[in-house]
Amino acid sequence: MTGATASDRITAQMAFLSEADRLKSISRATTLCDASRRENSAEHSWHLTLYALVLADQAAPGVEINRVLRMLILHDLVEIDVGDVPIHSANGSAHGSQATRAAESSAADRIFGLLPPDIGSAFRSLWEEFEAAETPDAVFAKSLDRMQPVMANLASDGGTWIEYQVTHDQLDARVGSKIARGAPALWDWLRDRTLAWFSSR
Amino acid sequence: MTGATASDRITAQMAFLSEADRLKSISRATTLCDASRRENSAEHSWHLTLYALVLADQAAPGVEINRVLRMLILHDLVEIDVGDVPIHSANGSAHGSQATRAAESSAADRIFGLLPPDIGSAFRSLWEEFEAAETPDAVFAKSLDRMQPVMANLASDGGTWIEYQVTHDQLDARVGSKIARGAPALWDWLRDRTLAWFSSR
Repeated sequence: MTGATASDRITAQMAFLSEADRLKSISRATTLCDASRRENSAEHSWHLTLYALVLADQAAPGVEINRVLRMLILHDLVEIDVGDVPIHSANGSAHGSQATRAAESSAADRIFGLLPPDIGSAFRSLWEEFEAAETPDAVFAKSLDRMQPVMANLASDGGTWIEYQVTHDQLDARVGSKIARGAPALWDWLRDRTLAWFSSR
Repeated sequence: MTGATASDRITAQMAFLSEADRLKSISRATTLCDASRRENSAEHSWHLTLYALVLADQAAPGVEINRVLRMLILHDLVEIDVGDVPIHSANGSAHGSQATRAAESSAADRIFGLLPPDIGSAFRSLWEEFEAAETPDAVFAKSLDRMQPVMANLASDGGTWIEYQVTHDQLDARVGSKIARGAPALWDWLRDRTLAWFSSR
């Protein structure tokens, strides 16, 4: 590799890292635990990596936490172009819809396309694996992604459950089933607390 | 382990994860690349993990990126109690001072102490290794931690360099030397750009 080419590679890496900065301006429906403001997708991604480190002992045998961490670091980058679709919102049916998936795929083309191809294609594969939610690593990562907003809503006395008038049956269907798939003991623990909160209303 | 004890363990894990949410409210001196607001320490930590993934090919032989990722996820948690000390500020001499180190150590006692001891002591060790900046993994992690604000200042046309009236010699001493230690080619690339920016002033 010539000097010029090595420098070009760094230029591409840095261009991607600067573009990624925009994830800090993508707002999610969920608030911080203290309800002071809505969370953004960059700090949410950090929090999920911490969830993965702390709750690694709840992962199914064979789950590689190092791959889970990578998926969680990358999982929301497409939101720079597409934004976050809140799962409980009136627009919630767009979550995971074919139109949303197509838009996210175009976003992935553009954003991962900023990188040198060897890195971009590795990131793209990890992101697609996360989205497909079929491998044990992706199933566990998805569980964490669904769990963290439940914790924020419990901490902030209802959060998006109140905003979007969510019932516990809806929570079970939209969120609980996904958490239970990758981390059943954690959903057992959480469900005791969500049931108590909903029944206190 | 009895059922009650397993549930107690999850309760401790979740208490730590909720406490960690407060890192999203710790403000840093550096702004976002678009200068719209100051960055917080949680989203900064996420950005650094992405730096580590993207720039892994710049790490010295033997650096384990999986350990670097863990250090970066954990490295700022003590700021929940201590806050961030901007390296270029009038108070910059407090950065790394004995008083700051003692306060951060107490913060680590409290925050990592929320966890089950096996997890808490592993996290504490990784954080101390990062702070000591002696192992190859920690040296590389520190390089990234110094590099990302330089990128933000270049993107925002000066950022904290203007705010704190930083000279290029000060940047070389406070920041460049640390970046060069763990990622010399990246500091070469960056320094071309910082010199151009400072000489254009």
